[in-house]
Amino acid sequence: MTRPSSAAPDRTDPEGAIAAAAARCSNWGRWGEDDVHGTLNHITAADRLRAAGLVRSGETLSLALPFDMDGPQKGWRRRTNPVHTMLDTGIEAEAGIQGFPHGLGGADDVVAMPLQCSTQWDGLGHIFDHGRAWNGRRSGQVVTSEGDRVTGIETAAGRMVGRGVLLDVGREIGDDGELPDGFAILPEHLDRTIEAQGPDSAVGRADFVCVRTGQLARALRDGWGDYAGGPAPGLSFTTADWLHEHDIAGIATDTWGFEVRPNEFDVAFQPLHQVVIPHIGLYIGEMWNLDGLAAACRKDGRFEFMLVAPPLPITGAVGSPINPMAIR
Amino acid sequence: MTRPSSAAPDRTDPEGAIAAAAARCSNWGRWGEDDVHGTLNHITAADRLRAAGLVRSGETLSLALPFDMDGPQKGWRRRTNPVHTMLDTGIEAEAGIQGFPHGLGGADDVVAMPLQCSTQWDGLGHIFDHGRAWNGRRSGQVVTSEGDRVTGIETAAGRMVGRGVLLDVGREIGDDGELPDGFAILPEHLDRTIEAQGPDSAVGRADFVCVRTGQLARALRDGWGDYAGGPAPGLSFTTADWLHEHDIAGIATDTWGFEVRPNEFDVAFQPLHQVVIPHIGLYIGEMWNLDGLAAACRKDGRFEFMLVAPPLPITGAVGSPINPMAIR
Amino acid sequence: MTRPSSAAPDRTDPEGAIAAAAARCSNWGRWGEDDVHGTLNHITAADRLRAAGLVRSGETLSLALPFDMDGPQKGWRRRTNPVHTMLDTGIEAEAGIQGFPHGLGGADDVVAMPLQCSTQWDGLGHIFDHGRAWNGRRSGQVVTSEGDRVTGIETAAGRMVGRGVLLDVGREIGDDGELPDGFAILPEHLDRTIEAQGPDSAVGRADFVCVRTGQLARALRDGWGDYAGGPAPGLSFTTADWLHEHDIAGIATDTWGFEVRPNEFDVAFQPLHQVVIPHIGLYIGEMWNLDGLAAACRKDGRFEFMLVAPPLPITGAVGSPINPMAIR
Amino acid sequence: MTRPSSAAPDRTDPEGAIAAAAARCSNWGRWGEDDVHGTLNHITAADRLRAAGLVRSGETLSLALPFDMDGPQKGWRRRTNPVHTMLDTGIEAEAGIQGFPHGLGGADDVVAMPLQCSTQWDGLGHIFDHGRAWNGRRSGQVVTSEGDRVTGIETAAGRMVGRGVLLDVGREIGDDGELPDGFAILPEHLDRTIEAQGPDSAVGRADFVCVRTGQLARALRDGWGDYAGGPAPGLSFTTADWLHEHDIAGIATDTWGFEVRPNEFDVAFQPLHQVVIPHIGLYIGEMWNLDGLAAACRKDGRFEFMLVAPPLPITGAVGSPINPMAIR
Repeated sequence: MTRPSSAAPDRTDPEGAIAAAAARCSNWGRWGEDDVHGTLNHITAADRLRAAGLVRSGETLSLALPFDMDGPQKGWRRRTNPVHTMLDTGIEAEAGIQGFPHGLGGADDVVAMPLQCSTQWDGLGHIFDHGRAWNGRRSGQVVTSEGDRVTGIETAAGRMVGRGVLLDVGREIGDDGELPDGFAILPEHLDRTIEAQGPDSAVGRADFVCVRTGQLARALRDGWGDYAGGPAPGLSFTTADWLHEHDIAGIATDTWGFEVRPNEFDVAFQPLHQVVIPHIGLYIGEMWNLDGLAAACRKDGRFEFMLVAPPLPITGAVGSPINPMAIR
Repeated sequence: MTRPSSAAPDRTDPEGAIAAAAARCSNWGRWGEDDVHGTLNHITAADRLRAAGLVRSGETLSLALPFDMDGPQKGWRRRTNPVHTMLDTGIEAEAGIQGFPHGLGGADDVVAMPLQCSTQWDGLGHIFDHGRAWNGRRSGQVVTSEGDRVTGIETAAGRMVGRGVLLDVGREIGDDGELPDGFAILPEHLDRTIEAQGPDSAVGRADFVCVRTGQLARALRDGWGDYAGGPAPGLSFTTADWLHEHDIAGIATDTWGFEVRPNEFDVAFQPLHQVVIPHIGLYIGEMWNLDGLAAACRKDGRFEFMLVAPPLPITGAVGSPINPMAIR
Repeated sequence: MTRPSSAAPDRTDPEGAIAAAAARCSNWGRWGEDDVHGTLNHITAADRLRAAGLVRSGETLSLALPFDMDGPQKGWRRRTNPVHTMLDTGIEAEAGIQGFPHGLGGADDVVAMPLQCSTQWDGLGHIFDHGRAWNGRRSGQVVTSEGDRVTGIETAAGRMVGRGVLLDVGREIGDDGELPDGFAILPEHLDRTIEAQGPDSAVGRADFVCVRTGQLARALRDGWGDYAGGPAPGLSFTTADWLHEHDIAGIATDTWGFEVRPNEFDVAFQPLHQVVIPHIGLYIGEMWNLDGLAAACRKDGRFEFMLVAPPLPITGAVGSPINPMAIR
Repeated sequence: MTRPSSAAPDRTDPEGAIAAAAARCSNWGRWGEDDVHGTLNHITAADRLRAAGLVRSGETLSLALPFDMDGPQKGWRRRTNPVHTMLDTGIEAEAGIQGFPHGLGGADDVVAMPLQCSTQWDGLGHIFDHGRAWNGRRSGQVVTSEGDRVTGIETAAGRMVGRGVLLDVGREIGDDGELPDGFAILPEHLDRTIEAQGPDSAVGRADFVCVRTGQLARALRDGWGDYAGGPAPGLSFTTADWLHEHDIAGIATDTWGFEVRPNEFDVAFQPLHQVVIPHIGLYIGEMWNLDGLAAACRKDGRFEFMLVAPPLPITGAVGSPINPMAIR
């Protein structure tokens, strides 16, 4: 049997390929007309209990990049790096000019940042297909200037807990742990990685799949360059069915944009997003730092872990900066 | 034996009382001169493993308030509520004016917020005593306009995982689950709450203690009023020794400022902060929403849980907005 | 002859009254289909030359409020007061820790603010009538998430120069220089003020009319209270024709919202805006501090002056904070 | 007689050269110990009256760059380009989903920007010399995390009005109207430009001198490149005395940083700033767009004009974005 997802799509017809993949993979209505959770519905309390059971040593790893001006953003779509400024500092405190009694001193601070600037979750209101958002809603009735009034990231506030699986595709398929820019990760690459890593890497319902390409390691070593929006290894458009069939809760990569860039069409922009967010209802994590986790997994041969990656419940946000915790 | 911590301090001499408590409770040097982690040092991997073992049903609860303009801030010290704005919306996507090919649409957003505006961790660089920061450093050499260059919240990025214990003091000591504003929670109130709740509420080394006063329930019911900076129930100054002796990793309350307001001195401002942050090195959580957790704990009589409350690693920040997860 | 503008409108039918006033006062097409300047078209170079000729002493007055956290905003529509934070300070400079050579020190800063938070110009894209913007354009094609793509405030960058006339209605009609909240300034009040002040107060083509109600003096004396969005003296809905007939370039008041509040309909919100911005194409200034100017004008009996009130050319903005200069 | 200012300084001793120039040019105490206005003290009402008399045709020119993300900033010192976002748009208005009665629609917006990001005034608290600010004050007592508590830009709110003189050095000295990067404008270049342009270009007390290098025209044509912080033509260190002797009120250039870059020392950073701001008390304008003004001046041979360049009175700011108006 041919798996339709693996067939290379017609390079000249992204719109047709997107429509076909959307038709094959759609979860619209699967959890009712009012659903706002998408693939997070896959996770049950029992799954979370099992995820907690994956903790063996108590080792914890932060999968976040530093949030500061040394980030990858270069201004595209008004995306800046986080700007952190102080309202009060220890210098004034030491100088005794803060006006507090009995020697008290304090420091406060402020941040301004695009929610898509660094390690993040894409919310379900982040991407649309022909004016349709997750579950078939009209995008203009979901995300207005007031924010996402239906599927805002606050709906996921208590749900980002479950089993994580690291697929170190960079290590299994790449050279020296890194896939080159433009490398399209096919379903077979995912399957080969699972096979190589061993049985505990099997991916199934309710899992958070973390795909390491190695591009971030390269960027951290060589400089950001075009990391934000330039060529990158990433998921092939043909993985849409794989992502759908496995009933995963979420997927995250160590790249800016999750899917391969340039993509597999002559003229297209993030076509896989257009299938997986509005049609599958899939939560995507981007710019996750998976290098430390990969080293830890490699060391003891265990690639599954408890993942806790709570978004900031910014009302109506279409995404959130996060500090995902892998607990092993 | 008298516990010095429980004796009511001289109302007229906060500076003396702070100095005495600091002398009794100081952890300076306890984890070496270079330490930047304070009470997070108490937590070992084994503790985190045990914390994961506390998960029984897989129930997860977000302890965060919504991050939006309907928050408690009123402008004091330039603290605003979070301002969330959209860079692109579903309306433009539906109108087809975003310039993307093949029917793709997208929404992006931005947030600007004080790091102390809502559910948060205070970092170790948030409060100073006579120009001294945690571990005895000069505050002017720690927190400058560039941020906290030593104990920035990023140092806690991978460490906010452990056993949580809810002490529902509002329920045990208050009326209808709420302590009145100005109520000073004494060590004995903490102990009585532990005793009333049962053995699994015992507090010890490496725990994150969540103290529910009920004030937030009142504010959510009656309006914010002076929640941010006004009168509140909270920890008595006399709990400094209790907090120190129990070797806890962190403490969090459902109030704006953790300690009782007005405080127990004639003229003073947040005197307990001045002891516990710079001298004990204690992490304080504020504005945590503990009501849902309290209901869940009350229901099954279990007041301990796995707590995962990762800060955003904003480089040099003296605190972080968070979405703490209680996993039961 | 009855002036239709002065007849009190039917309190129960704001929509009808707005439609009728819009029909009477519309300037759509007056300066061509492509026009983006509205009433600024009234001003010629010769007018500006004459305005410069009004300068007699060289006295200059800033008509701006301070831009800081002590402003009137309380969060409505996510409008905060300006948040100004430092990136570097003189304290670090004095401490010698900035890393610059040869004793150089520096301070930088940042501001985040709604463009409608304080002394401002409303741009032509600020208000719409039934989905129509200035000159009859569809509002959805003018102002998107990218900003005002047609009539952004940058189109007025070089045009806010001309003759200013102060109409101190608060002084002429009010008690002790102040009109009470809810006082509707009728055309006859404007005319009586002109008559009382003398011939140099005559209002005509290309003028910037500054109407002082005295409310700001009250707010600065008694506290902001509900200055931002609450009851206020202001222009009556019935002044729409007066504003149109006089072919003025702009109008500014010392109030938050230019028109009287509560307004003259049972259920309505800023109905005069709905006529004058989209239909007349009139520039409105709000929260101008006219008290010092009024004192100066009163002193020498001259109520006309050169006005230079350049907006910041923030691309696509629907308004701008300003520091209007009256030069006499 | 040798003019000490024109002698090339010792390349190896910026600190000595700065100290010597500061000693020659200091205005400390000239306007009293409490002075906060620096060279703006030079301007009298009579000067402003004369400036208004320079208006001949009523032509107005905005000297501001567009304030948007297409600006020159690249993140150095956390300086971003302005981020402008919408709170409401015409799309929602047209869709009728804003909740206003009678067909009213509205758009609001927000900006976040460093005050030094585009066309601007440097305030007197922007630069220090060995911990000393304007008039000899300790910089740590002037500019703290609360902002400039003494010489904040609000002190200049009503004062930025006077005679402007354009010195088109790029045209007179350069090729095709542009000086190359690294070209140091010496006093003799300023004098030769004045001579070439004619008697109305004479510079004296209270003038605002606008020096066009042509670099901005190059950047607007070829792309920003390193405009923000890279090599540039600009004022030579040796012009300090010229700037001081002429008793000008302010100086502005079409470059990022006013002075030549690289500068005339082996290892130094903005040494001329260190003399002119803290010691002379001189207001510096940067990133002014002088090209349109230059064309207009060239056309009719008149290089003097009325300048009105009011800063936004952001309390405690060390600078302000501006839209300077040249009125001719």
